[in-house]
Amino acid sequence: MSTALPMSSDETEVAFYDALSRADIEALMALWAEDEEIICIHPGSQRLVGHATIRASYEAIFERGSVHIQPIQLHASRNMITAIHNIIEDVQRTPEMTQDIHILCTNVYIKTALGWRIVLHHASVAPGRGPNELFRASMLH
Amino acid sequence: MSTALPMSSDETEVAFYDALSRADIEALMALWAEDEEIICIHPGSQRLVGHATIRASYEAIFERGSVHIQPIQLHASRNMITAIHNIIEDVQRTPEMTQDIHILCTNVYIKTALGWRIVLHHASVAPGRGPNELFRASMLH
Repeated sequence: MSTALPMSSDETEVAFYDALSRADIEALMALWAEDEEIICIHPGSQRLVGHATIRASYEAIFERGSVHIQPIQLHASRNMITAIHNIIEDVQRTPEMTQDIHILCTNVYIKTALGWRIVLHHASVAPGRGPNELFRASMLH
Repeated sequence: MSTALPMSSDETEVAFYDALSRADIEALMALWAEDEEIICIHPGSQRLVGHATIRASYEAIFERGSVHIQPIQLHASRNMITAIHNIIEDVQRTPEMTQDIHILCTNVYIKTALGWRIVLHHASVAPGRGPNELFRASMLH
């Protein structure tokens, strides 16, 4: 991650998935707002609230390795101080997966004196392969 | 629902679950922002975008009856024009349910000229009975 302050929610989102891909816990946690009401919901898991709990969850995830996610098909609602992103997290199909799924994710960012920070990450599993490739291609380009 | 404009995100949230409990599609849809980027994710389902698609999904749900949900354990992040709510939707256990679950839900509201409106509703299933009753009781009173 660059040491520059993220100037948009898009930059913070890129930095978030970059930190996951490098299993960089310090870079990852630095992207969250300095607020004990921050919320993180991993797919199929309970709600986590606050820095200590969320950090511990990512440390446990990183013990199994880094996480490679390509966020696609962004729908966003933005104003001057808040950005609501809803994305599909494109996950590679593995041999253990018995059926097609995709991950839906809501990421909420607020503008702070230290740049755009995450206040909520809510990810959940949806059935099927996700919206069709035509739509997907049109959003990516 | 009262015909008065909702003056807070809390009022809109109360009106949302009230409309669900009465299977009132008009009252329900009037609470959403007038924006084609509105997002609705029902538990275990695909992402729905825009008024027509979201309305059709609730019409299908209401064909099976009204929906009684008690939102509890609110965590909120608010500013003057946006409110991020994360709640647990308390659902009654039915004989068909083979294991304990709870529903986690992110509701995002924005302040518009017509009061506080919903821009995103993301609900998902989590395992277990949810956080303990002691915490729950402390949040309710």
